Amino acid sequence: MSTAVALGVDVGGTNVRVAAVAADGGVVATGRAPTPFGDVEALVAAISGLVREVEVEVGGERDAAVPLPVGVGVAGTVDRGGTVRYAANTGLSDAPVQDRLRASLERTVVVRNDATMAMWGESRAGAARSADDAVLLTLGTGVGGGLVVGGRLVEGHTGQATELGHVIVLDNGRRCPCGNLGCLEAYASGTSIGRRASGRLATWDRGSSMDGLEPVSGADVVAAARAGDELALEVLDEAGTWLGVGIASLVNALDPAVVVIGGGAGSDAFELLHPTLLRALRSRVFGLAGRTLPNVVAAELGDSAGVVGAALLARDHQEDRP
Amino acid sequence: MSTAVALGVDVGGTNVRVAAVAADGGVVATGRAPTPFGDVEALVAAISGLVREVEVEVGGERDAAVPLPVGVGVAGTVDRGGTVRYAANTGLSDAPVQDRLRASLERTVVVRNDATMAMWGESRAGAARSADDAVLLTLGTGVGGGLVVGGRLVEGHTGQATELGHVIVLDNGRRCPCGNLGCLEAYASGTSIGRRASGRLATWDRGSSMDGLEPVSGADVVAAARAGDELALEVLDEAGTWLGVGIASLVNALDPAVVVIGGGAGSDAFELLHPTLLRALRSRVFGLAGRTLPNVVAAELGDSAGVVGAALLARDHQEDRP
Repeated sequence: MSTAVALGVDVGGTNVRVAAVAADGGVVATGRAPTPFGDVEALVAAISGLVREVEVEVGGERDAAVPLPVGVGVAGTVDRGGTVRYAANTGLSDAPVQDRLRASLERTVVVRNDATMAMWGESRAGAARSADDAVLLTLGTGVGGGLVVGGRLVEGHTGQATELGHVIVLDNGRRCPCGNLGCLEAYASGTSIGRRASGRLATWDRGSSMDGLEPVSGADVVAAARAGDELALEVLDEAGTWLGVGIASLVNALDPAVVVIGGGAGSDAFELLHPTLLRALRSRVFGLAGRTLPNVVAAELGDSAGVVGAALLARDHQEDRP
Repeated sequence: MSTAVALGVDVGGTNVRVAAVAADGGVVATGRAPTPFGDVEALVAAISGLVREVEVEVGGERDAAVPLPVGVGVAGTVDRGGTVRYAANTGLSDAPVQDRLRASLERTVVVRNDATMAMWGESRAGAARSADDAVLLTLGTGVGGGLVVGGRLVEGHTGQATELGHVIVLDNGRRCPCGNLGCLEAYASGTSIGRRASGRLATWDRGSSMDGLEPVSGADVVAAARAGDELALEVLDEAGTWLGVGIASLVNALDPAVVVIGGGAGSDAFELLHPTLLRALRSRVFGLAGRTLPNVVAAELGDSAGVVGAALLARDHQEDRP
């Protein structure tokens, strides 16, 4: 068994997951518990308990002078001090998770947005391993993302960078859950793919394997498309085109070597989205003649990206210390 | 007179300009000569001649063991090795300007895109002085830009990052000179502002001080708006709104502390564009409640930003050397 160098935590709407992670990004041991809702003290207790359990399992107690550093990814808005500003599905707002965990665990603790952690995982141990400049887009309920520029994770002035689902692709376009009109998320999340299929089914008279599904989910659309359903394929082609538009803006601004597509819907639908995405990207990238287009690839770490990235980021922060 | 620490060069379509720059970004001496067209050797000779002239003027020859480093900004596409891939208005393609200048001048030479150099100037000595995360948009014939992320200049994988005029604001929208439809440049460059005014004059029946101008330039629109012309004000409000859309995507992706508006048209029209720009930005930024909006400010260095940034970047590169 590889030696664990850090612990990564993912705080999702349903479960808190913990993984002990080796230097190469391999997951050595895991644990999980239900996510407490709206209670920062209960969350800190749950994370601390899981951390201690998993640490015992990997023998991390043996060198008690240097406890394993802990990285935590939270689905929500997290500032640079590790305070969760707002996280709808865990009911947290202005919750100083990083400070409270440091006090509880007495070690290096780094708390950030979950997509940021997933970007670091793919960057250090996954699909963007070789790239100093990389973009991650996670397609799921919403569209999240992360950026690596010049080998470093982009965090932004207030810690709220890389809300890549809210890059605008069509101003005054489709309503986004954020309230704005025309964000990438309104066209390319799993949710929006399902919703678009529902909407088009109403006037689709050529028959579809999705008939009778109400509501249609993103996963339904992907399953139907794999089986050759014409409407499902059209809906995914549309989503792929919009992804290409959003990625074109990011490529024109940041010139990454790699664009990684992850998240449940992104991984599931990758081969279906990829051809139209590339076509849309190619026709919109500036100065194509003198430019190498980025590789657009599927995420490699699946739903471990967040815990692996969190652990490796915590280790990097520990090494920064004197 | 402050001591010059580096020389900055701007290669424009008409003139090559050279400035000796002090550590605080102050310009100590300048020189200029016509830009040779389509001839890299003639360009290298012109730059080398100007550099030596200005260097003598500031006494840079006194310490011949460590000649002043030289930074060069070129309007065009420049790769990370300082080769000008394509520059329409100087007729260069695949021109190894950095390599040739290093051979000619025997010192540190750094060649980059001109908007990148202007970003570094504003970042080190201008309107973005206090910010580790900053965006520059230059509005002129086109829309250019630069980015600073985590205190470092963004160059991208191939050196072709920060083509911020080609962030898409309305997919399949207005035709951009780059060939794409719906880029920010198609809505917010000085050229596009003038063209939009020309187009709207044709059906405008309330009278305008721009009547009879053909073609209308961006500067004409700004002058008319300053004098209260209703159509000119409407056209600038539109452009300001589109700028806000493009900036919103950049803020959602990068969370800068400062957004600097520069370039001839941008500086000229700043106060006219600013209110609508801010309104559009505010309504499109993600998670406004927990976020500090960036300051959107006018560039401070005017058309010296490029030479100042080029000089200071060259100095930074020199200091990186053993």
